[in-house]
Amino acid sequence: MLRSLITLTTDFGASDHFVGTMKGVILRILPGAQIVDISHGVRAFDIAEAGFLVAQAYRYFPPKTVHVVVVDPGVGTSRRPILVEAAKQFFLAPDNGVLSMIYAQEKHKVRMITASKYFLPAVSQTFHGRDVFAPVAAHLAKGVPPARFGKLIDDYLRAEFDRPTRTGKRIWTGSVLKVDHFGNLITNLPFSEFSRIAERPFVLAIGFEKISKLASNYTECPPGELFLIAGSSGYLEVSTNQGSAAKRLGCASGSAVELTVY
Amino acid sequence: MLRSLITLTTDFGASDHFVGTMKGVILRILPGAQIVDISHGVRAFDIAEAGFLVAQAYRYFPPKTVHVVVVDPGVGTSRRPILVEAAKQFFLAPDNGVLSMIYAQEKHKVRMITASKYFLPAVSQTFHGRDVFAPVAAHLAKGVPPARFGKLIDDYLRAEFDRPTRTGKRIWTGSVLKVDHFGNLITNLPFSEFSRIAERPFVLAIGFEKISKLASNYTECPPGELFLIAGSSGYLEVSTNQGSAAKRLGCASGSAVELTVY
Amino acid sequence: MLRSLITLTTDFGASDHFVGTMKGVILRILPGAQIVDISHGVRAFDIAEAGFLVAQAYRYFPPKTVHVVVVDPGVGTSRRPILVEAAKQFFLAPDNGVLSMIYAQEKHKVRMITASKYFLPAVSQTFHGRDVFAPVAAHLAKGVPPARFGKLIDDYLRAEFDRPTRTGKRIWTGSVLKVDHFGNLITNLPFSEFSRIAERPFVLAIGFEKISKLASNYTECPPGELFLIAGSSGYLEVSTNQGSAAKRLGCASGSAVELTVY
Repeated sequence: MLRSLITLTTDFGASDHFVGTMKGVILRILPGAQIVDISHGVRAFDIAEAGFLVAQAYRYFPPKTVHVVVVDPGVGTSRRPILVEAAKQFFLAPDNGVLSMIYAQEKHKVRMITASKYFLPAVSQTFHGRDVFAPVAAHLAKGVPPARFGKLIDDYLRAEFDRPTRTGKRIWTGSVLKVDHFGNLITNLPFSEFSRIAERPFVLAIGFEKISKLASNYTECPPGELFLIAGSSGYLEVSTNQGSAAKRLGCASGSAVELTVY
Repeated sequence: MLRSLITLTTDFGASDHFVGTMKGVILRILPGAQIVDISHGVRAFDIAEAGFLVAQAYRYFPPKTVHVVVVDPGVGTSRRPILVEAAKQFFLAPDNGVLSMIYAQEKHKVRMITASKYFLPAVSQTFHGRDVFAPVAAHLAKGVPPARFGKLIDDYLRAEFDRPTRTGKRIWTGSVLKVDHFGNLITNLPFSEFSRIAERPFVLAIGFEKISKLASNYTECPPGELFLIAGSSGYLEVSTNQGSAAKRLGCASGSAVELTVY
Repeated sequence: MLRSLITLTTDFGASDHFVGTMKGVILRILPGAQIVDISHGVRAFDIAEAGFLVAQAYRYFPPKTVHVVVVDPGVGTSRRPILVEAAKQFFLAPDNGVLSMIYAQEKHKVRMITASKYFLPAVSQTFHGRDVFAPVAAHLAKGVPPARFGKLIDDYLRAEFDRPTRTGKRIWTGSVLKVDHFGNLITNLPFSEFSRIAERPFVLAIGFEKISKLASNYTECPPGELFLIAGSSGYLEVSTNQGSAAKRLGCASGSAVELTVY
């Protein structure tokens, strides 16, 4: 028997009861549900970062997995909770653009969640993760058909944080999507679109540095040297051997990068 | 078949083997047990904070859940391990007052755990989470009746950290129970007892600031302004829109608050 | 039915999608697998610390548990993934010495993992946790016999970080294996080999301090005083009552200690 699988991605951190409480809500509705934490260390209110993390993870999960993404600066306002069907999986999130990378990569259907009978009896103004998203996830994983939660909509919010812009004949301007735990800077430049940098000269400008080396693994360059690498994310990453490129450059998520390919 | 559910709340942090080892002990006794982390980020030795977290979470869990709470400045001394039955659930903790909020909210029975046959064969002086609480939790979740672990006692320790004190005709003095991940300061003033501040003028003094605004959600006030909100915890919380009220005020758990209602 | 149990120990931290993605890979191959995090807070690239953590935890897990340890400064280079059978359990790791404490404590067989049909179809240069170790762990937990993954080898790497050196008639020089969450300094001096310090005078030199007190629990000494304690790890630990010995001494993992027993 396949156990129902639910993942959680939030900016709730690890020191509060928030995540544990969401799991209690899920397990009371669906005993035995399997719950996997993607990350609760998303920077507070950083929608782009949360969107990046779930977009990195979902393709490794089995069909019917329910991904709950709660990063929600507008909790308690009129923004809508949504249910997205894509890649044979489900995504639950506030309609604030956090799923834009999923929209860009997969065919998808989006529903506005209105069936409040699947919410907790009392919905607080400040903790929809517990009161709305956790119970909806449990009911969905339990087999309630998506259409029961609400109607299809097409005016959901799409953000454009995942794409670089062409700003010259040979120039693309992008940004850093995420600084990972090791200090690697993951840009929004997909390696598949820029794979020609393996054969042609290029310069990536970031902070006060210019990088023109592409490495195939982290140990190829001497410690201290900055290089690009085709990261496991599918994007070009700025790295340094056994050090933090982020600290070295003083850059963070959102920092601009400019790639010139000759 | 209902899987047995055990939650863990500790100040063990996430970088050591402590929590993983406790889970190994549980799973060797009760293969397939479902284990949920409430938090391992409790401030070291902060009994009030751990007590607050478990009191926030337990009501969302199913009947028979076993909640293990290990924050234990006195590990290795003569303080007793206890087993509490309340709200159709179980609580295991050292007898140091950490369950006082449960005592205040629920009918309860308290047992001193003395049946050392349910402990690991060798009990260390420093890690009762692994040697006492984890195996007792597993045996309890497996179906061993509570009475087998020890006799009822009534001289268990109650702490009073969860209640404000009336210090004037219109004045209550309380404290901050917890600073959450977003920097919201959760006071020990229950909204249910002070709901009249929605209609009457009030002043909450905290740090060097006086707050007289009650908001219904985080985005109602402009960024930077401090306000009170009836948090998801059931207590009045001091917050600011997309910023950290704790940093702004320089306050932490234990800080005093004074509420005057006119 | 015994559920398959897999543990994870990495230096991936908690803020990225890395750990969640590994779990997705495992659960797609082996739905219902039980996955326990030992720690993802190992210091980046600290092989000794990861080795210590898994060596502390494994003996508390049931037979057939699969322990995955990924701390891997050399990811993407020619270092080999290995599968170790010891203590009726399994260990998967890069061949960089991280399992040396297991080798020292248990009879063991080591295989080089070469059967790439158990890897993900595309193996990245930078994330073998996802592409190699997670799928191999899932197939192993699912029942694929160890021999299917590769041949026995005997030239695997052993490190010696876990042993003190005798440097005088009454003197042993060792080091700090790990600073735990509470600031206790866990040395590599096994209490079982030095239990005579309970009866004889001794001096442990560390940082600028000399310690000559052995305590039996954390609260025996007044706050501020440094003492040794036979920690739950089985090693001598340098501690102080309700404070951080590491901060007090300015020491970290790798710091030298010198024990003289009279």
